Amino acid sequence: MSDRGRFITFEGGEGCGKTTQVALAKEYLALLGISCLVTAEPGGTVLGETIRRMILYETELHLGPESELLLFCAARAQHVRQVIKPALQAGRWVLCDRFCDATVAYQGYGRGLELDLIYRLNRFSSLHLEPDLTILFDISVEIGLNRAKMKTASFTGHPDGDLIEGEDYYFHRRVRDGYLQLAQREPERLRVIDGVQDIETIHSQVCDCLERLR
Amino acid sequence: MSDRGRFITFEGGEGCGKTTQVALAKEYLALLGISCLVTAEPGGTVLGETIRRMILYETELHLGPESELLLFCAARAQHVRQVIKPALQAGRWVLCDRFCDATVAYQGYGRGLELDLIYRLNRFSSLHLEPDLTILFDISVEIGLNRAKMKTASFTGHPDGDLIEGEDYYFHRRVRDGYLQLAQREPERLRVIDGVQDIETIHSQVCDCLERLR
Repeated sequence: MSDRGRFITFEGGEGCGKTTQVALAKEYLALLGISCLVTAEPGGTVLGETIRRMILYETELHLGPESELLLFCAARAQHVRQVIKPALQAGRWVLCDRFCDATVAYQGYGRGLELDLIYRLNRFSSLHLEPDLTILFDISVEIGLNRAKMKTASFTGHPDGDLIEGEDYYFHRRVRDGYLQLAQREPERLRVIDGVQDIETIHSQVCDCLERLR
Repeated sequence: MSDRGRFITFEGGEGCGKTTQVALAKEYLALLGISCLVTAEPGGTVLGETIRRMILYETELHLGPESELLLFCAARAQHVRQVIKPALQAGRWVLCDRFCDATVAYQGYGRGLELDLIYRLNRFSSLHLEPDLTILFDISVEIGLNRAKMKTASFTGHPDGDLIEGEDYYFHRRVRDGYLQLAQREPERLRVIDGVQDIETIHSQVCDCLERLR
């Protein structure tokens, strides 16, 4: 591979353990002397943070599914242009908590928007950047959602979590199925890890995946 | 035509006189006993107003062309869903200052983004709503831009106008050409009015167009 850094995305439904694993992966890479940037969608830029707040917490916006999709994509384009591509070009590795696959799983399978348009918007909004590796943490909806809502409630006080966590069981079920279908379609890029295992076991499986990219 | 209200969009480059004419058109329709809603893109909803501020005034966002396009479309989807469609269904006429054609002219011809993607995003973000009539005010870039910057400067204090008005001559030239090409392609829907004529002359031409929709 070139001197360009590696681009690794972490995906999965609510409460799958992504955020914990991204932090551990960063520590592991640091031990290997690899400088890496940890970032998350939607976010990482001023626009992205504004959009995150709107989508997750501003109930009075009453966002329709079309606007939600377009806002996620707007945030991504800015994130790739201002943050991710410059870091990769400087040789850093980028660990990104959610990327294009999340749009397919949540807005495509979850909300039922046209997959074909979503794939096209993903290419456009990522400026055609593709992950070198995507790690998908798979977990049952029941376990994941409970974990996620407890975590969100602990810092926002909302027992139902944020607006996406608050969607019904069937929504999250479709999201999980969507992710698993993506993994079946692109087994080379997407590695599935069972998210109910303990943190250390999962971490060592993540490290195995990262090793193959060096 | 059905009991649904008529949907009329007003288009043109900076300083073409749209806003003045929309206000006069509303007064004219009121005299005829037609209830109408005047609205503008991006705007008309909480999301739209936030996006308008971001696109036109927030220099520190450094918005890329992809994000700009996606934000305009996100604002439109919300605008159509929450404001325009409900008004039309209630039998009101809707006069909208800019709509999908502006995206073709500004983001397509002006910024050089793929026209094919823009057409698709327009259908998606308008929830497949099409104007019954579009009035395009055509004016030379020199005259229009001068007018627009003076107006914006008078209420913001920025001598170069907002961020879109501040684009260079060639950008606005491409926007004008884009609009004229759209008018050539869809002469039935798009009526071109010469924007350098005096306000009253233009208004009477607008009234002739509106009469045909009753």
